[in-house]
Amino acid sequence: MRIVLCIEYEGTNYTGWQAQNKSSKKTVQYYLDKSISNVADSKITSICAGRTDTGVHAISQFIHFDTNKKRDEQNWIKGINSHLPNDIRVKKLYFVDESFHARYSAISRSYRYVIFNQKTNSAILSDFALWYDTDINIDKLKKSIQYIKGEHDFSCFRSSGCQAKTPIKIIKKANITTEKSLIIIDITANAFLYHMVRNIVGTLLDVNEGKLKPSDIATIIKSKDRKNAGKKVSPQGLYLMNVEYPKHYKISVTKDFFHYV
Amino acid sequence: MRIVLCIEYEGTNYTGWQAQNKSSKKTVQYYLDKSISNVADSKITSICAGRTDTGVHAISQFIHFDTNKKRDEQNWIKGINSHLPNDIRVKKLYFVDESFHARYSAISRSYRYVIFNQKTNSAILSDFALWYDTDINIDKLKKSIQYIKGEHDFSCFRSSGCQAKTPIKIIKKANITTEKSLIIIDITANAFLYHMVRNIVGTLLDVNEGKLKPSDIATIIKSKDRKNAGKKVSPQGLYLMNVEYPKHYKISVTKDFFHYV
Repeated sequence: MRIVLCIEYEGTNYTGWQAQNKSSKKTVQYYLDKSISNVADSKITSICAGRTDTGVHAISQFIHFDTNKKRDEQNWIKGINSHLPNDIRVKKLYFVDESFHARYSAISRSYRYVIFNQKTNSAILSDFALWYDTDINIDKLKKSIQYIKGEHDFSCFRSSGCQAKTPIKIIKKANITTEKSLIIIDITANAFLYHMVRNIVGTLLDVNEGKLKPSDIATIIKSKDRKNAGKKVSPQGLYLMNVEYPKHYKISVTKDFFHYV
Repeated sequence: MRIVLCIEYEGTNYTGWQAQNKSSKKTVQYYLDKSISNVADSKITSICAGRTDTGVHAISQFIHFDTNKKRDEQNWIKGINSHLPNDIRVKKLYFVDESFHARYSAISRSYRYVIFNQKTNSAILSDFALWYDTDINIDKLKKSIQYIKGEHDFSCFRSSGCQAKTPIKIIKKANITTEKSLIIIDITANAFLYHMVRNIVGTLLDVNEGKLKPSDIATIIKSKDRKNAGKKVSPQGLYLMNVEYPKHYKISVTKDFFHYV
């Protein structure tokens, strides 16, 4: 039996999603696999939709695992949550057939990057947003982000160590909204390169600071050269918001899932 | 010279505002006084508007201290912040005359209590809201909270250990709003008794669960008996939002201060 979980976590206290080796206990996957194994009564190794880095959060990460254990949805969720630290929570569970794969069945991923734009950083948001004290010209950012939409070779936004087979990705949506002192950048793509969102945001901030013009984004993408794009911004502003799967799996994340962000 | 600071902090990692004794290093005041002393080149003991408990947050706490050191506003703020942990931040500074007292000059305090109303707790909000999984009847809560407005003897909502001279307080505002899955309870009073907001919220939740009717709130207040009110709710949903001072001190917190909450 294949089970899918929708997981929320705060990345602050973890060295990212993935267990690098046996001694890497401080990963989200380590705690999750341990908790699932406990409830499933057998050793479980989960597979996730998108591995997140140290300090990166997830509102809706998806994972799958196989088990013979029979329990109902609420027993699974409550059982696994009872073994997890408070900053990792299972929100929802789906029973699927074996054709489903958390990573390979995904049609798209949506990430959000949050910037806190004030002269002094926020104590409460220090682990949840990038503090940026230069005034933001939101129109400039909105103009700039238009250029990343569509199918492109995104080598310019690809960090070294990227394991993707191809640098060609399709950005389906890219929007910027504001809420009080927060600048919220939402990007949906079929898939992302290593550090792609953080490299894009760094480049947008270069435009904000006048180092680049909005239309330079198009030139940088065409150059396929990482050196032409801006610096990678820090991880604490980044959230994996959602993963889209083919409709027949009935893994739909309703708006209710975005409880507050 | 008397200086006032507006402070934001996340209470999670601290045993409340106040240093109980010399060994109590994990208080907000301990870190703040140490940082101010460092910048002021002399030992500073600050006085705050309202002491907060373990796990309680502040969006705008106010403190004052005296110093002979001459620095401009930004030098003070940046200097103190450079010595503080990230979860405590000085947001603003005011120079005042010696008639000002952070505690005794305050006209009113505003607290907010945040409830996260969902079947499963949020990983990201676990330190920032009370998780409450029973459906909330918002109309019932709104009806109930009307009864706490005005001047009353609030002994029923006073925890033992309270040092207030009188249990008679004036609640000037009491509102409940919702935002997605969050229930936000805002209460402004001239002053509060020990655990008063948390005891009020616990009583409102008793109404929600049908243990009390909305109008019972009035009866409970009249009884002046703590045993008739509900249980104290946990601290992580509570925020000191603002403190109001006489206008001539020009300590005004603009709406910009509520950057995100």
